[in-house]
Amino acid sequence: MFYLIGLGLSSVKDVTVRGLEAIKGCKRVYLEHYTSILMSASKEDLEEFYGHEVILADRDMVESQSDEILAGATEDDIAFLVVGDVFGATTHTDLVIRAKELGIKVESIHNASVMNAVGACGLQLYSYGQTVSLVFFTDTWKPDSFYDRVKENRDIGLHTLVLLDIKVKEQSIENLMRGNNIFEPPRYMSISTAAQQLIEVEQTRQEAAYDENTMCVAVSRLGAPTQSFKVASLKELAEYDAGEPLHSLVIVGPNPHDIEIQYMAEFFDGTKEELKACFNK
Amino acid sequence: MFYLIGLGLSSVKDVTVRGLEAIKGCKRVYLEHYTSILMSASKEDLEEFYGHEVILADRDMVESQSDEILAGATEDDIAFLVVGDVFGATTHTDLVIRAKELGIKVESIHNASVMNAVGACGLQLYSYGQTVSLVFFTDTWKPDSFYDRVKENRDIGLHTLVLLDIKVKEQSIENLMRGNNIFEPPRYMSISTAAQQLIEVEQTRQEAAYDENTMCVAVSRLGAPTQSFKVASLKELAEYDAGEPLHSLVIVGPNPHDIEIQYMAEFFDGTKEELKACFNK
Repeated sequence: MFYLIGLGLSSVKDVTVRGLEAIKGCKRVYLEHYTSILMSASKEDLEEFYGHEVILADRDMVESQSDEILAGATEDDIAFLVVGDVFGATTHTDLVIRAKELGIKVESIHNASVMNAVGACGLQLYSYGQTVSLVFFTDTWKPDSFYDRVKENRDIGLHTLVLLDIKVKEQSIENLMRGNNIFEPPRYMSISTAAQQLIEVEQTRQEAAYDENTMCVAVSRLGAPTQSFKVASLKELAEYDAGEPLHSLVIVGPNPHDIEIQYMAEFFDGTKEELKACFNK
Repeated sequence: MFYLIGLGLSSVKDVTVRGLEAIKGCKRVYLEHYTSILMSASKEDLEEFYGHEVILADRDMVESQSDEILAGATEDDIAFLVVGDVFGATTHTDLVIRAKELGIKVESIHNASVMNAVGACGLQLYSYGQTVSLVFFTDTWKPDSFYDRVKENRDIGLHTLVLLDIKVKEQSIENLMRGNNIFEPPRYMSISTAAQQLIEVEQTRQEAAYDENTMCVAVSRLGAPTQSFKVASLKELAEYDAGEPLHSLVIVGPNPHDIEIQYMAEFFDGTKEELKACFNK
């Protein structure tokens, strides 16, 4: 059996009881280690909690060496652990398709992910449109296809969850060219960087998907004990220090419901009435 | 402390290790018992697994007697258990707002819900639009506001998750009028009923949000060991026996990605090419 097991968002204890039992019975246990990180737990913490060795699986291993991961899974149990829930990333879907081609049984053990836990910020989950991702801009590469998605969402009154880039085990161009096996320290996009990039794209595109006064919810360390939310305009969030990673951002729809405003007001520097006045302009 | 704890989708063991520890330490433990049910576990199963009494909380208790649920939570730990994740329903948001008004600390312990676990059917989570709910139609009450939401989603190429009604502890009009404390057996909307109602609304509205040939994914018992998916047209699903509850439905967007088609083909009565031909017409 090939188990895909969601680990939830933060601590080693966010695994489900069923997931933990499955892990303990597996011959090999891989941890997907490039689309997200478990905020409050290291590889060693996991190994101690599971009583089992954990093999870190980077993008290259998952995408090019999937048969190695799956080796023996027709007889033995193999686990592939994913931070959040198991179907957040396309590459995991590829892995399942490959397993089925090889005649391996697959079982998913689900968990919380940012896609549903973001409900904690008070915006109703059924009022979100499509989710978008924002990658680190460089001087020459500023992909902005997310902009059209945000516009589509806002045109029909919906909130947009913006997932922020993380870079794990990346190489500098110099080290890549020279074939040096040296990796850059991990980087996690902050809310301020995200807000700056969003404003930059609006200034380029100028199609009024949003503007610097658009209200957003800064989501910091969702699911961790230090989780926090901050409701403010993009312009304010461009200067906001949200602390340790991981961060996400919600671009609030143009007309949030009264109960959404009431809930968000707790995270806003002002009264409920002042927050309400930030919408419907 | 007032804990909101997600139970996940199916078995008692779908609770997280952190959630289980919190439950064991609580003075009172409530189970929200009207927006969803845990498929493979009864109240008694939960009580045995937790080693703790579980109080069933129906809609009336949660909406009218919230202060009773919250009583003493400034000193003692109280748990409110929710099937799936904690912020699926608006009434839970109300409960949190009330708790904070009373000066009670609130902590959420998240879990999987249909909103993210539906990724298991192979459609990418970031390509879903707003989620809609479908209620049981009666002869005189056929609410169809979901139709506009589905149209909005499909107009911009997105999938739509359709949550199907459940009726727990409902009274017949006769018993309600007579003040009899007699409740109807629980009812869970099946995929075939949902498909029939969707077709009925399209025939009334005729605004081409979808038609009876629109491809959908029937989602049965998501997260349970007997979980199954079936890819077929609405017309076919109107006759489909999906077995035991709970059921959900995904209306596939008009142009699914190649990898989505490849994954869905496993649940389709035909080849990948035949499935592909069902789109882009």
